[in-house]
Amino acid sequence: MTSDNSALRVDVALIHHPVVNKLGDIIGSAVTNLDLHDIARAGKTFGIDNYWVVTPFAEQQQLCKQIVSHWTEGYGSRANPKRKMALSLIKVCSNLDEVLEKISKKWNEKPRVIATCAKSQPDTVTYENMRHELLEGQPSLLLFGTAWGLAPELLKKVDATLPPLCGYGEYNHLSVRSAVSIILDRLLSNRQ
Amino acid sequence: MTSDNSALRVDVALIHHPVVNKLGDIIGSAVTNLDLHDIARAGKTFGIDNYWVVTPFAEQQQLCKQIVSHWTEGYGSRANPKRKMALSLIKVCSNLDEVLEKISKKWNEKPRVIATCAKSQPDTVTYENMRHELLEGQPSLLLFGTAWGLAPELLKKVDATLPPLCGYGEYNHLSVRSAVSIILDRLLSNRQ
Repeated sequence: MTSDNSALRVDVALIHHPVVNKLGDIIGSAVTNLDLHDIARAGKTFGIDNYWVVTPFAEQQQLCKQIVSHWTEGYGSRANPKRKMALSLIKVCSNLDEVLEKISKKWNEKPRVIATCAKSQPDTVTYENMRHELLEGQPSLLLFGTAWGLAPELLKKVDATLPPLCGYGEYNHLSVRSAVSIILDRLLSNRQ
Repeated sequence: MTSDNSALRVDVALIHHPVVNKLGDIIGSAVTNLDLHDIARAGKTFGIDNYWVVTPFAEQQQLCKQIVSHWTEGYGSRANPKRKMALSLIKVCSNLDEVLEKISKKWNEKPRVIATCAKSQPDTVTYENMRHELLEGQPSLLLFGTAWGLAPELLKKVDATLPPLCGYGEYNHLSVRSAVSIILDRLLSNRQ
């Protein structure tokens, strides 16, 4: 087990395509400013190495890069250096294969891909077991979907799926920002 | 312990005044749309009874009520009934005393007020102990601050404070949306 962040090799990817809409159709969603900030801040807090923003749309990639550069190089970086530390984690990619290629190059090893889903999936792995593996330093990519969630074609490709986040009732419609924050806390918080 | 939401008597309040800015000055912050949505969705997921949006500014109260009514009565309520369920938790108040008065009336009992703070406070209560008390049905109000956090005058008034949320590093600059989500998960998630 780690006593600091140095052993962790965990990345997060936020997928904007392919994801599903309310009807289950495959769509591409828009990048939103607060997804960048909130997930980068949670990522930095819990020792994530990179936060991959995945969209195939050139204009959306450009928008994302402009926002990030405001906070990492522009006025924002001087006004709020803590925010700079968080947004420095962000990298923009076109698709999951490109993310996997870049992470494999970084760690010299293919990461295990772990999906999260608001609906129960077969063969889920427990948070405790996954936490143990991540704290041991296993290269891992946590995959999150925008809109109504990851497309089935992505869910089929992953190595493991985490169980849905639930209270004591039936309702579980969290924002992706909330879901990422909770899952990082469950997997990577310092419990001492 | 509860097996559904019915025993819970937990509310959340998001304070927009008095909070502090980066320099520690007392300020009033602006209501933001995504604080309303994300915290309401997390609140509904984890069985919160009401989500109190606290601002003394009449125009901000008005804005908040307009957003909520779009989703609870207007077009949004028909387009996305799940969102209606979440935003129906929201109530607008001018200050903490007013919130406490209304909650005391609702439960016929004064709630215990529990603060959260990104900086360590003296005499914190553990998440496990607090979880146990909340699941037993103790009327409780979880207090969250916008901007750089709750003003000292509010922190002095509370009955208990929860420890800061940390990873294995030094950085802990979470958005209030992330902090609320994580704390509700720690206190009120269904672990079975």
